[in-house]
Amino acid sequence: MKVSVVRNILEANERIAEQNRALFNENHLLVVNLMSSPGAGKTSLLERTIERLRQELRIGVIEGDIQSTHDAERVAKKGVPVVQINTGGACHLDGNMIRETFQEFDFKSLDLLIVENVGNLVCPAEFKIGEDFKAMILSVTEGDDKPSKYPLMFHESKALLINKIDLLPYVDCSVQKIREESWKINPGLKIFEVSCKTEEGMEAWYQWLRERVLAKKSQGG
Amino acid sequence: MKVSVVRNILEANERIAEQNRALFNENHLLVVNLMSSPGAGKTSLLERTIERLRQELRIGVIEGDIQSTHDAERVAKKGVPVVQINTGGACHLDGNMIRETFQEFDFKSLDLLIVENVGNLVCPAEFKIGEDFKAMILSVTEGDDKPSKYPLMFHESKALLINKIDLLPYVDCSVQKIREESWKINPGLKIFEVSCKTEEGMEAWYQWLRERVLAKKSQGG
Repeated sequence: MKVSVVRNILEANERIAEQNRALFNENHLLVVNLMSSPGAGKTSLLERTIERLRQELRIGVIEGDIQSTHDAERVAKKGVPVVQINTGGACHLDGNMIRETFQEFDFKSLDLLIVENVGNLVCPAEFKIGEDFKAMILSVTEGDDKPSKYPLMFHESKALLINKIDLLPYVDCSVQKIREESWKINPGLKIFEVSCKTEEGMEAWYQWLRERVLAKKSQGG
Repeated sequence: MKVSVVRNILEANERIAEQNRALFNENHLLVVNLMSSPGAGKTSLLERTIERLRQELRIGVIEGDIQSTHDAERVAKKGVPVVQINTGGACHLDGNMIRETFQEFDFKSLDLLIVENVGNLVCPAEFKIGEDFKAMILSVTEGDDKPSKYPLMFHESKALLINKIDLLPYVDCSVQKIREESWKINPGLKIFEVSCKTEEGMEAWYQWLRERVLAKKSQGG
């Protein structure tokens, strides 16, 4: 009983996510579903990415939080359109929540939509929202055992940003071990080592993301 | 439909949790449900707490992980009985999972059972497992906005350990703000500032926990 209900919810979500995806494709809009534990640096990554790319790309943001509008306020200061979703307790975003933001956006005027999911290393990985791909952040302060303990998110993501590398001298964490364990789960995973604080390593991420936006724009265009 | 199903699951869980609780009470066993984001330091706190208290208290541990036995292996090295629960995808422990470990323990030979929940700042707070109280860890690397963004866990916990205070010089985080925001949500919350790495601040936690174990042992005993 319990299993079948959960499966029904997942199947219903997949249908809505596919509809969202079709709409994004029509508009040649690249959509990134950004996931991590609480406090790994999703909002900081957004701030840096917007600062660096807003002159060349038209960026929109959806902020997912259980409650509060802290993150949306931070992102709005960067001068891009932001819509806040408060899930009211739910631990992840789903396709329907994303659909409910559509009236707030003019998708034709955007090149890139980044969706910041609820801070949670588990549940968001199970739900599609219509994204082109999922990307995740792992902070080095979380430790190098996380890929083997929380494999689904590493499996579902196209890119992994290992963040807060400025703290490596002060924590027991091997970036090499994170790389090896992540690639065991997902051999195609693209990995970036970054510090959103010092901006070390960020140019490679900007370039990779830029290429994906441009590829999406030219698809069938 | 979705809401009623979720409510049924929660209600069924509460009944099982109450049965667990009755069994723990019969055995004068204090049970702590330990929660946090991934990598905040639950297993390190367990290791330190066992090292410090195992001469005076008989401690058992349940380790909750989606998969892997890393944490159970770390704790077993400290010479206490440990049972691993692999949730196989589920993002939290529930009453039934705890009940399934009962055949592995001799509760009469224990004073304190610590249950390390799945690393997740959201879902574990919704589920009772039969515990005397919930305790949570927040790492200073996660940032001082977490109480207002993830209020349920702060609301449901009796104790908050602010961990990794040795990293405070290197991160933007105000412990005072964490205290104030946490107390807005839960005025009775007991707060400890600790470093499981350097052991700074840990004695106050040990003493608080010791007092609770002794109080439980004397209840109706």
